[in-house]
Amino acid sequence: MRTGIWLVGARGSVAVTSIVGALAVRASLADPVGCVTELPPLRHPALPALSDLVFGGHDVSCVSLVKKAHALVAAGVLPAAVVAAVADELTAVEADVRQAPDGPTQHDTVVRIAADLADFRERHGLARVVVVNVSSTEAIPPDHPAYADAAALATALHQEPVLPPSSRYAYAAFTAGCAYVDFTPSTGARLPALDQLAARHGVPYAGSDGKTGETLLKSVLAPMFAMRNLHVRSWSGTNLLGGGDGATLARPEANAAKVASKQRVLRETLGYEPEGHTRIDYVPDIGDLKTAWDLITFSGFLGSRMRLEFTWHGCDSALAAPLVLDLARLTAAAHAQGLSGPLPQLAFFFKDPIGDVPHGLAEQWRDLCEWVQGWPVPGEGRHEAE
Amino acid sequence: MRTGIWLVGARGSVAVTSIVGALAVRASLADPVGCVTELPPLRHPALPALSDLVFGGHDVSCVSLVKKAHALVAAGVLPAAVVAAVADELTAVEADVRQAPDGPTQHDTVVRIAADLADFRERHGLARVVVVNVSSTEAIPPDHPAYADAAALATALHQEPVLPPSSRYAYAAFTAGCAYVDFTPSTGARLPALDQLAARHGVPYAGSDGKTGETLLKSVLAPMFAMRNLHVRSWSGTNLLGGGDGATLARPEANAAKVASKQRVLRETLGYEPEGHTRIDYVPDIGDLKTAWDLITFSGFLGSRMRLEFTWHGCDSALAAPLVLDLARLTAAAHAQGLSGPLPQLAFFFKDPIGDVPHGLAEQWRDLCEWVQGWPVPGEGRHEAE
Amino acid sequence: MRTGIWLVGARGSVAVTSIVGALAVRASLADPVGCVTELPPLRHPALPALSDLVFGGHDVSCVSLVKKAHALVAAGVLPAAVVAAVADELTAVEADVRQAPDGPTQHDTVVRIAADLADFRERHGLARVVVVNVSSTEAIPPDHPAYADAAALATALHQEPVLPPSSRYAYAAFTAGCAYVDFTPSTGARLPALDQLAARHGVPYAGSDGKTGETLLKSVLAPMFAMRNLHVRSWSGTNLLGGGDGATLARPEANAAKVASKQRVLRETLGYEPEGHTRIDYVPDIGDLKTAWDLITFSGFLGSRMRLEFTWHGCDSALAAPLVLDLARLTAAAHAQGLSGPLPQLAFFFKDPIGDVPHGLAEQWRDLCEWVQGWPVPGEGRHEAE
Amino acid sequence: MRTGIWLVGARGSVAVTSIVGALAVRASLADPVGCVTELPPLRHPALPALSDLVFGGHDVSCVSLVKKAHALVAAGVLPAAVVAAVADELTAVEADVRQAPDGPTQHDTVVRIAADLADFRERHGLARVVVVNVSSTEAIPPDHPAYADAAALATALHQEPVLPPSSRYAYAAFTAGCAYVDFTPSTGARLPALDQLAARHGVPYAGSDGKTGETLLKSVLAPMFAMRNLHVRSWSGTNLLGGGDGATLARPEANAAKVASKQRVLRETLGYEPEGHTRIDYVPDIGDLKTAWDLITFSGFLGSRMRLEFTWHGCDSALAAPLVLDLARLTAAAHAQGLSGPLPQLAFFFKDPIGDVPHGLAEQWRDLCEWVQGWPVPGEGRHEAE
Repeated sequence: MRTGIWLVGARGSVAVTSIVGALAVRASLADPVGCVTELPPLRHPALPALSDLVFGGHDVSCVSLVKKAHALVAAGVLPAAVVAAVADELTAVEADVRQAPDGPTQHDTVVRIAADLADFRERHGLARVVVVNVSSTEAIPPDHPAYADAAALATALHQEPVLPPSSRYAYAAFTAGCAYVDFTPSTGARLPALDQLAARHGVPYAGSDGKTGETLLKSVLAPMFAMRNLHVRSWSGTNLLGGGDGATLARPEANAAKVASKQRVLRETLGYEPEGHTRIDYVPDIGDLKTAWDLITFSGFLGSRMRLEFTWHGCDSALAAPLVLDLARLTAAAHAQGLSGPLPQLAFFFKDPIGDVPHGLAEQWRDLCEWVQGWPVPGEGRHEAE
Repeated sequence: MRTGIWLVGARGSVAVTSIVGALAVRASLADPVGCVTELPPLRHPALPALSDLVFGGHDVSCVSLVKKAHALVAAGVLPAAVVAAVADELTAVEADVRQAPDGPTQHDTVVRIAADLADFRERHGLARVVVVNVSSTEAIPPDHPAYADAAALATALHQEPVLPPSSRYAYAAFTAGCAYVDFTPSTGARLPALDQLAARHGVPYAGSDGKTGETLLKSVLAPMFAMRNLHVRSWSGTNLLGGGDGATLARPEANAAKVASKQRVLRETLGYEPEGHTRIDYVPDIGDLKTAWDLITFSGFLGSRMRLEFTWHGCDSALAAPLVLDLARLTAAAHAQGLSGPLPQLAFFFKDPIGDVPHGLAEQWRDLCEWVQGWPVPGEGRHEAE
Repeated sequence: MRTGIWLVGARGSVAVTSIVGALAVRASLADPVGCVTELPPLRHPALPALSDLVFGGHDVSCVSLVKKAHALVAAGVLPAAVVAAVADELTAVEADVRQAPDGPTQHDTVVRIAADLADFRERHGLARVVVVNVSSTEAIPPDHPAYADAAALATALHQEPVLPPSSRYAYAAFTAGCAYVDFTPSTGARLPALDQLAARHGVPYAGSDGKTGETLLKSVLAPMFAMRNLHVRSWSGTNLLGGGDGATLARPEANAAKVASKQRVLRETLGYEPEGHTRIDYVPDIGDLKTAWDLITFSGFLGSRMRLEFTWHGCDSALAAPLVLDLARLTAAAHAQGLSGPLPQLAFFFKDPIGDVPHGLAEQWRDLCEWVQGWPVPGEGRHEAE
Repeated sequence: MRTGIWLVGARGSVAVTSIVGALAVRASLADPVGCVTELPPLRHPALPALSDLVFGGHDVSCVSLVKKAHALVAAGVLPAAVVAAVADELTAVEADVRQAPDGPTQHDTVVRIAADLADFRERHGLARVVVVNVSSTEAIPPDHPAYADAAALATALHQEPVLPPSSRYAYAAFTAGCAYVDFTPSTGARLPALDQLAARHGVPYAGSDGKTGETLLKSVLAPMFAMRNLHVRSWSGTNLLGGGDGATLARPEANAAKVASKQRVLRETLGYEPEGHTRIDYVPDIGDLKTAWDLITFSGFLGSRMRLEFTWHGCDSALAAPLVLDLARLTAAAHAQGLSGPLPQLAFFFKDPIGDVPHGLAEQWRDLCEWVQGWPVPGEGRHEAE
């Protein structure tokens, strides 16, 4: 059951780390550390195997995958020996990485994207394809009437530049019968018109904004304060990051999208919003090893004042890549089972999950495990049906 | 349904903070911040109300409760206004705080303790009494054959100093028909002979070692690493604390008990034991505002090396006191329902919980909530029984 | 030799802490911890004694000094017992705290300020008065041609609102024959026209921006890296603060002045400017106990990458107040010796010192000590003159 | 003027990093970052050039230098490209690295060491040799009467194992006319008998315990508190380290030597000893990137309580190696000028400097600069003598 992963931003750090990692694990050069679908409660025969994944994608950059992989070695993200060992296979993936289409109208663009997706599926004889957005964070677009209705949106695409890039990919994915996952805080599939389109085409989608660092910690620490009935007075965060994502997020408008996404977990798990802000600062020297510092002030019994500080030094690409593989496998399996529309069961993976879902990591984990454990076992299901 | 809390170590910081806090909340001088039984999922009519609690206890110290409360004001633990407002009631509690008995034999000692408990129950017309150990941490005693059998233990108590203080109180509690909770890492009720005794007398017990700071964080952070399939390579902790508990824990033998208790959560939630140690250092100037610093090194996808550091500045007495009230209420309600023996459902509260229980805080919380929500509502049960 | 300190912002946290502290030390209720002029190398008979200081000032607020002192007790800045003990004397100071004048023209305003200063000096028979600006940080004003020349400035004051408040006080101080110290990053005396005025009136001035926290640390850590020939790659700082100053600094224009002042020490002591920014965030809950977190990345031999992080929890008012007393005493002694114009020897106290001075704390300390130790001893000088 | 550096522990991390670094800088493959003798105030023609240094040494290990260098590449200490580029030269150094002698008596041992030193000097035609101890930290030996007198020591060496290894090397160095530097906290030359021996042979010595991390910070932060008249209440430190040194320091007796050395700076710069301890813990996973966490509690004006925390992630070998080169160059130049006995001017480099010297880094730096700047320029001196 060969399954395609189509990476939007295929030449970026997260995408290349995902591809190199999948090739390395497949070749037994590395353990699937960081892949949650390899944990016993989530192993399920309905999931496509890592060795069944076929990679392709779009990018505006044209640096080669191997060159980018070497840059990630220099940055301390990828081990040199692994990149050397998979270099040939990585070069073979090049054939499926296309220049991001840019038509005279957005309608033309989405048609070309969809054609690339269909072509990818056919050439490789894939059962299905999951489009995963791992490109740079976009600014939040102003609202537009066509966002509310699929038909209006179809018309608008002929007339004006209405959709941000991430949503053009979601549109193209749905019309090509592909699932879509947004690993960024960009708009992606989160428009009523696109939700209608996913339903009509019978494809699932998931998002948004992969939870890899500071927000991951918030999703266990905020519930801890809540479970202990301690009052969080302020929660202030500073994120220092270099690399491509850092440069993008230094632009205030992209930053705004990310920061809003990062604070949601506090409101949702505490039931109120503490004082304090989350800042993102671009410090090129930090490179891919992002540093987040958070200060939480809280009060306990009889008003006693206390504090928690943490510093997280995490490699964003290394944290994101295995989750990209997990999401592709889980979304493909959901698609195979005929599920369509949003997948709230994947909240575990996201800073800003779709739907009315729990925001505590432990509840999200339980929901994910129960969902997967409830899936029919392929093969067995057919017998029952007879 | 008036219920007694008998505090072993009644003149210590935790006990006095508990009593002052209960009096303050009862008088609407403070909100029950930090009391988990006041959270909606745990509110249950079977729990004795805070205003139904009656306090008593033993101590080897003879400093007055009011004087200790003023010391806690000076240390920044208690607010001056609250202590002033409850001073009269606090003085009234003095009548129920007795000098810790010390008989010519341990048999005599436990008989006297049990007599004090029975007397307390009768004088106040209490439905039941929960003995809570909040005294200083003891060294772990060497094993003794009499620990395995209640009859052998009863004999040994006449002959030699066989039980450490915490276990003498558990023994006395059980023979007096009282529940017992150990908030310290001392031996307490954790001996087969005492378990037999609790069963014979039909009383429940719980423990051990209240989870108030560094271990509380471990119980949410270690599951986070496990759920994300990240490999924790080392976890090193330093605890700096002043105050009475700090001085006790600076003694290597008491320290050993505490440190073992603190590391268990890692082994249980990760499935392996990372490198690193937990240290406790006594720094009088730190006072009651304990500082814990932990460094966690972990690896992710393709061996990438990452780190998390946290610093926790927590007031131990303020964190412990509301949990002492919670434990007394929950244990009393369990006793009222006829439960006896260990209460593994209270694992949420402890560093080193009794029984084969989950060590992740979220699972412990769920177990606790399900347990309480499954209790019959007093009054309704009788009707069903008819 | 009674000496006046005229505090601009006399009802603010720093001013009230200074006054209460001086009264407390004078009455032997507290040691002069934090006062550097009480250290052996700086004790000099030319310095007015703490008991010789007379306090007065201007403010736009009209909350009483005692009320403000009680607020500082509640905030944990001042001890209740000390405030109670000096309350009467503090009330006596009220007579010398005036509403900040605001005339129809800036000329009128400076004349009224100068009149208040002269009146203060005469009523108390003071040898001299030092005006110290401890009011809120102002935005940096746009440049104005009159800033370059005292005569042009005198004319402009009649015609338009040309000077920011801090500079109006400097103007008035100089014309009244008083020294001026700027403890804030505001413009103060740092205009050529005002420098001319100070020279003409024979009065000294000093500034600017008291070095009390993060920058104090930078002034010892940056030289450490320089002395060890380690290359600082990035230095990023986050300052979280509540209280009045925090609210002011949350305004981007005031923030800009402060942040520029904070980074200067790096450029000056390292000889280059590392990557990274300094941020100031207003978090009311933090109150007066400011928290600064800095991350410094640096490289050593053969390019090895290393890091230093620090967190500073400092009470700004408590750190600033003794330095205000020091500066008043040192500036008054300089004035008494006939010095006029800028006092670069006081660089030790400031984030953004006047003149071409060292920025490492140790060199600043040495310069300060050598300066003071070189002063003639009052009384002895006269004999030599004969 | 070719000069030898004889490294005791020549196959260890610090030694190999020193050699590789010197070869790399000499070949213009790297800048001399971390070398303080390359800073303008310390450049002096009397210093042997880096290219004049010739390396040799003793070790008990027999792993090859190249193999050790590759291990340091794997550990992230050395860059792979640099090691590859200098591999041939590194192999050439092997000829001068000897197995550490171990004679039937200590007299025999020191004679053989001295013979190796003389042979090294002659074979390479070296002007002089500096022996630098960079081997593992030893336990402090019990006192012995022969330590007080060179003659008694000479006799004792025939009779019993009287000297720890570091002191045997100092003894041998002095009798061979070589200078000796102790970069470890071991006893080394710090015995009266050895001081007499150094004087008799006219050779200088320096030590001890290179100041590379936590103590370096203490030597600027403690003076900062002192200069500001702030009262340090407690200073607690935790050092986590892996690697060979970590394993050694986990042994309590070696640990004791190191810890005593680390605390001295506080007593000397503050004038009193604050509460708190310094701990060293061995965590193999940390490897060479040592992590130190310190918590400093202090009080300011009117008793206000404040805190500073820092975390230092430093690569010990990379911090130590350039200082080893500096010390060899400076000590050789001192020797060339005829200086003998202890060199207190080198206090800047050491945790536990010899002599009655300042412990603040800035004063040590000034003393070092003044000393070097006062040296005669070689060549010029001869003209004056004519």
